[in-house]
Amino acid sequence: MDKFLKEKFNIVISVGDEKGIGPEVILKALALNELHLNSRILIVGSKKNLISEYKLLKSLGTKNIINPEELTIEDPKVSTSFKNIDMTNSGNASFYYLKHATEIVKSLSNAALVTGPICKKSWAESGHFYSGQTEFLSESCKVKNVGMLFTAKSPITGWRFNTLLASTHIPLKEVPKCLNNDLIVSKLDLFLKFLKKFQQKPFVKVAGLNPHAGEEGLLGSEETDWLTETLKNWAELNQNVKLEGPISPDSCWISSAKAWKETVSESHDGILAMYHDQGLIPVKVIASNYSVNTTIGLPFLRTSPDHGTGFDIAGKGLAQCQSMIEAIKTAKELSI
Amino acid sequence: MDKFLKEKFNIVISVGDEKGIGPEVILKALALNELHLNSRILIVGSKKNLISEYKLLKSLGTKNIINPEELTIEDPKVSTSFKNIDMTNSGNASFYYLKHATEIVKSLSNAALVTGPICKKSWAESGHFYSGQTEFLSESCKVKNVGMLFTAKSPITGWRFNTLLASTHIPLKEVPKCLNNDLIVSKLDLFLKFLKKFQQKPFVKVAGLNPHAGEEGLLGSEETDWLTETLKNWAELNQNVKLEGPISPDSCWISSAKAWKETVSESHDGILAMYHDQGLIPVKVIASNYSVNTTIGLPFLRTSPDHGTGFDIAGKGLAQCQSMIEAIKTAKELSI
Repeated sequence: MDKFLKEKFNIVISVGDEKGIGPEVILKALALNELHLNSRILIVGSKKNLISEYKLLKSLGTKNIINPEELTIEDPKVSTSFKNIDMTNSGNASFYYLKHATEIVKSLSNAALVTGPICKKSWAESGHFYSGQTEFLSESCKVKNVGMLFTAKSPITGWRFNTLLASTHIPLKEVPKCLNNDLIVSKLDLFLKFLKKFQQKPFVKVAGLNPHAGEEGLLGSEETDWLTETLKNWAELNQNVKLEGPISPDSCWISSAKAWKETVSESHDGILAMYHDQGLIPVKVIASNYSVNTTIGLPFLRTSPDHGTGFDIAGKGLAQCQSMIEAIKTAKELSI
Repeated sequence: MDKFLKEKFNIVISVGDEKGIGPEVILKALALNELHLNSRILIVGSKKNLISEYKLLKSLGTKNIINPEELTIEDPKVSTSFKNIDMTNSGNASFYYLKHATEIVKSLSNAALVTGPICKKSWAESGHFYSGQTEFLSESCKVKNVGMLFTAKSPITGWRFNTLLASTHIPLKEVPKCLNNDLIVSKLDLFLKFLKKFQQKPFVKVAGLNPHAGEEGLLGSEETDWLTETLKNWAELNQNVKLEGPISPDSCWISSAKAWKETVSESHDGILAMYHDQGLIPVKVIASNYSVNTTIGLPFLRTSPDHGTGFDIAGKGLAQCQSMIEAIKTAKELSI
């Protein structure tokens, strides 16, 4: 922490599960000089393991990786009491890296958190029962209304593609039960607060829940029962937003694909999706590798790459670091 | 019917709802000479209305439209008894155009059906209670297991992108209840029969139902309860298929976007989606305007453009005909 100054913007990176590709994509991403400009980077993870990872990647012929000796590493002591159970130990360690990184970010006024991927199952097996890192952060910061936002900046047009999820990691059959007026209003409020940073009068689109947004009640009743009314009321209270919805989900993202590829006159600033795959299928099809999982609503910004631990390709030098690069860039760009 | 010969391949087009954009996209599409090559085209609809549409479009300055006088038009007598209710009359007419067109196609051995968009509500208001044209066709042909397939040929690589829906026009909350072993097996059987026309050993991907395909039961149980087992058993019985699934829905279509834009070494031949928007969101994002709604499992092939009636833009000359062009091309290409 000594070299970690309060004058510059601070990016704190937890390495995630060390049996996965987190350390690899971090070492690859941080070889890019521009990520170090105008900010200080602090890694939270095992220095010993990062050095092993570096040596392994070097032996595989990987170029363009940073030597961990050049990095500022915060190495919290973590118990490895789950004897001979590697996965559980690395799951346990990844939890404490996140916890420690969160404490650092909370103690600074000018910092953002970037999290490497973790394995929910290994967390559970080591006694940490959260459905994801977001839920831990929400509890740790005592904030109930957080939002899972996927944001990506088009390398072609510079347009920022924002998709917020109204519901996240729940079974599909739970989705219609969990959506209601209050949830949608809270997510729209959160989204607006975020979008207002960039746009005076943001254009927000909201997807329907059912095919063809229910087609006037023929293909589902949530839109006619309450969703349309909720959006109408919210738009009346928020005249500083252009709101459109509920839109037929299958056409809602067509204009995003267009704005990603070419400059269009009136592109939207954000889309609220009703559930995980409704939002993430188009995000990954349109902005694969560029999309960053962002938590909004916390006292600080948190980003993470949009991929998982990649256990099957870990230790082979095969992992792509584009999404980690974007996560670090985005953490800075959206915080400052 | 006189000029309609049995020697050539026949494409029978029902105009759909005449208050919508069906007639406009048909007149625009058929201006393209190549659609008439090696096939005969028969339109089922009101000749008088097509001529009015033609005159209207001409008066708006629309170029490249065919004069209905150059077309073979079958004009069945349709009651207009819903006095002064235009929408109901056009809904009623669109039903009888489809019925008549279907009878013609059934009477020929070398024909395909192309259907213009209809309005389900207007069908219902004129006493025709079907959840869509597909359901009417299924009943008319006495075939229970039909499939709603979206197919698109990439204009860049020539690769054909096929997505079959396991469930179609039902509310989202009904999806988990309607999916089961027998349904998935019947859809895979149908898909295989279709794909075998083009590939000796097709590569079929199957999306999961839940986020991350359930993540080992943590985010939904259908995959672990039966879906994974169903796919395993089906693959064992069908060694002439390469089957992959259940795949995390949010990554299932990433490779489709790639194969659409560039030639890849091992692209898939088809994806089975669990529900309407899971399949149609990526189809429309990747292949907007090129995608064709195809019914498989009938004694003949039926295609239709992937858009609706477009009542809001009808009569303004604004409708894009690319999807109708693709529907006609596809009807021929996949039938012969």
